[in-house]
Amino acid sequence: MASYVIIKAMIEPVVLKGFRDSLPKDEIPKKRIIRKLEDVFSSYGFVPIDTPVLEYTKILLGKGGGETDKQIFRFQDNGGRDVAMRFDLTVPFARFLAAHHDEVGIPFKRYHINKVWRGENPQKGRYREFVQCDFDIVGADNAESDYEILSMMHRSFSALGIKGYTFHISHRALFSIFLENMGLKDAAVDILRTVDKLRKIGEDEVRSLLEEITGDKAKADAVIQYITAGDGSSFMDTLEKLTKLAGGENEASARMREIYSLLEAGGIESSFVFDPSITRGLDYYTGIVYETFLDALPSLGSVCSGGRYNNLASLYTKEELPGVGSSIGLDRLMAGLEELGSPLLANASSADVLIVHGKEETGKAVECAEKLRGCGIRTDIYLNPEAKMKKIYSYAEMKAIPYMLTLSPALTLKDLRTREAKEYASISDLQKEIRLD
Amino acid sequence: MASYVIIKAMIEPVVLKGFRDSLPKDEIPKKRIIRKLEDVFSSYGFVPIDTPVLEYTKILLGKGGGETDKQIFRFQDNGGRDVAMRFDLTVPFARFLAAHHDEVGIPFKRYHINKVWRGENPQKGRYREFVQCDFDIVGADNAESDYEILSMMHRSFSALGIKGYTFHISHRALFSIFLENMGLKDAAVDILRTVDKLRKIGEDEVRSLLEEITGDKAKADAVIQYITAGDGSSFMDTLEKLTKLAGGENEASARMREIYSLLEAGGIESSFVFDPSITRGLDYYTGIVYETFLDALPSLGSVCSGGRYNNLASLYTKEELPGVGSSIGLDRLMAGLEELGSPLLANASSADVLIVHGKEETGKAVECAEKLRGCGIRTDIYLNPEAKMKKIYSYAEMKAIPYMLTLSPALTLKDLRTREAKEYASISDLQKEIRLD
Repeated sequence: MASYVIIKAMIEPVVLKGFRDSLPKDEIPKKRIIRKLEDVFSSYGFVPIDTPVLEYTKILLGKGGGETDKQIFRFQDNGGRDVAMRFDLTVPFARFLAAHHDEVGIPFKRYHINKVWRGENPQKGRYREFVQCDFDIVGADNAESDYEILSMMHRSFSALGIKGYTFHISHRALFSIFLENMGLKDAAVDILRTVDKLRKIGEDEVRSLLEEITGDKAKADAVIQYITAGDGSSFMDTLEKLTKLAGGENEASARMREIYSLLEAGGIESSFVFDPSITRGLDYYTGIVYETFLDALPSLGSVCSGGRYNNLASLYTKEELPGVGSSIGLDRLMAGLEELGSPLLANASSADVLIVHGKEETGKAVECAEKLRGCGIRTDIYLNPEAKMKKIYSYAEMKAIPYMLTLSPALTLKDLRTREAKEYASISDLQKEIRLD
Repeated sequence: MASYVIIKAMIEPVVLKGFRDSLPKDEIPKKRIIRKLEDVFSSYGFVPIDTPVLEYTKILLGKGGGETDKQIFRFQDNGGRDVAMRFDLTVPFARFLAAHHDEVGIPFKRYHINKVWRGENPQKGRYREFVQCDFDIVGADNAESDYEILSMMHRSFSALGIKGYTFHISHRALFSIFLENMGLKDAAVDILRTVDKLRKIGEDEVRSLLEEITGDKAKADAVIQYITAGDGSSFMDTLEKLTKLAGGENEASARMREIYSLLEAGGIESSFVFDPSITRGLDYYTGIVYETFLDALPSLGSVCSGGRYNNLASLYTKEELPGVGSSIGLDRLMAGLEELGSPLLANASSADVLIVHGKEETGKAVECAEKLRGCGIRTDIYLNPEAKMKKIYSYAEMKAIPYMLTLSPALTLKDLRTREAKEYASISDLQKEIRLD
């Protein structure tokens, strides 16, 4: 009867729909990836910030309520304040800049890697809680700052050991000039949103939507001609074509030319294609825009996107703060890396060596462990001296520990992958043998 | 008129009461400290996990509602679910274990460093959003696992370069045996809570509260005698005294003896004192309990606390999961390190070198920057080629960048701390000169 009561009182250990635990096999690679990205960002003089998870709802929804509105986690706190959990890192950054631009120094180069929350319906690979990784330069509007972001994207992907990625870059203002010349200025927002869907719905569908929007088959064709001008052409050829379509040289085409020459100076131009179909739907971009695709996984979608915007913080301050930034979709990138069998994800071992010992050897085990840790070797001790070997092997396998060390009669190191064992006279002899990753 | 409208529409960029932004000067050291801790934890075979920020309220409040209840951020989500933001990392860990103990392998050694939220009234140095750093071993109940946690605490503080810290350790069961022998078993919880306040309210106040609770001056005196038995005595002497007061040898005293011999085997016994006044108020501890004080800042309070508990996850599973764990109060520790002038907090430079260049040298600047970054030198480029030198110096100072590099007529590196400048023939000559931190 008592046990019945206990069972009744138990709570099922479930998480909310759209949320998930991160187990060591996922959390170890995620931390490894974040460290590599942070190291790259630091090498460019970018600094980290953080902001509160909760903010006044009016700060977060200031403008562009609409669709986002229904998707945010919003509530009244115990003090009766209307609060919400951040749904991106851009709005909090704008508020942060308005509050602190004097303290941080402009131009300001920051990164922010942390969770955001959206109440949208969970789909395959989409969660209500996920990590964003944003990096921006604020307070400079020139080709050099555009380049710095692009270069940092390139070095990030290279540092992650990803083979085969292409940055698709375009310029929103150049497209706008083209549309204006076509007499399509008023339909620009709808056209941008439609073109943004090209990858999802295909050229024919986009064409018929454009015909609907413009009410003019020839104009729809011209837009299609513009957005497909990059197909198979070099960066500079595409730039020439588009400049012509947009009615000749202008500030936007000059900026693109300047950016390309910097990409050449940096020796990274081959990873960039001029792709005029990139528009980034959202309406706050004013200059370059870009998306990033893994060559082997085009269907994954963009894993790193962004662009140049003006006056990010205009809702909160009169200070003019033009910027350029980018965001890596960490969860999507990790899904891609997993599909590609990246070694970054494969190795989630908890330790380099597992010390296994009898009850009388605990002191000796502790001594050995402290010595190995002092040499930078990740050392786990198996904590049940009475366990059967089968259980210990299964423990080591579960935690992907490559070496096992037993203490008597001699120090014996066993490579659990090859099953080879070797005796050693001392810990210092032995530690040289353990390959560190 | 138009500008009036704009000003009216502006939103004040404020954060919620009890919340704060983390600026680079705080976020850089925080990330540095977390990395050092993670490296230590990894060296013991501990692995990271993460859990959702939002959980079902019934999961988080399962037991021990009461006080915590009013302090949590709790609301109905858009699907009508009763949800709350986690207020610690212990309850989510218990739920995690119940759900995943088969997948992670027992014993399980995990750490979890992340934010938690409490709606308590903000005080000096206390916030509604703060970072906890928890590490636990679950699935083993022996002196060796107790030792592993204590050793990891020691190595963590040592890795942070903290000079002068003492771990105050006691044993809850030994105290309980003593109280039982005194006929004070029923008052145990109240007595534990009272003794826990010793550091805050002093011995006299504790004595008079104990007299109230026990209704017996002699018994109150005996409790005071027990909890002050450690004053000025060695670990083993204190253990002898307390064992005698508790009526002779028992399991708890044997465990403490075993732990001490392991501390000796690890060569770290001098950082541990047996302090029977440590009880950790909370009622779920069943074995050793400990707090950590910085010798130079006793008034700061404990910066790392924890103990042994039984059946952490009993609310969610029938699996028996005894454990031992500890939690570093990262914000409090950082406040302490700041007060002590720790170099860990002092250096928050955004880059090693700032490249300053004229408009015509942008390509060359980019080339130099890429080379330096390739050598592991954090390189910022000043992004406004038309700025006055005064502005550039103030930028470098604000971001604590130690070196400035100009490109013409020759590569010239200036140490901004000494004001000394030197010319170089090439980037590879120059990069050897920049000391990396």
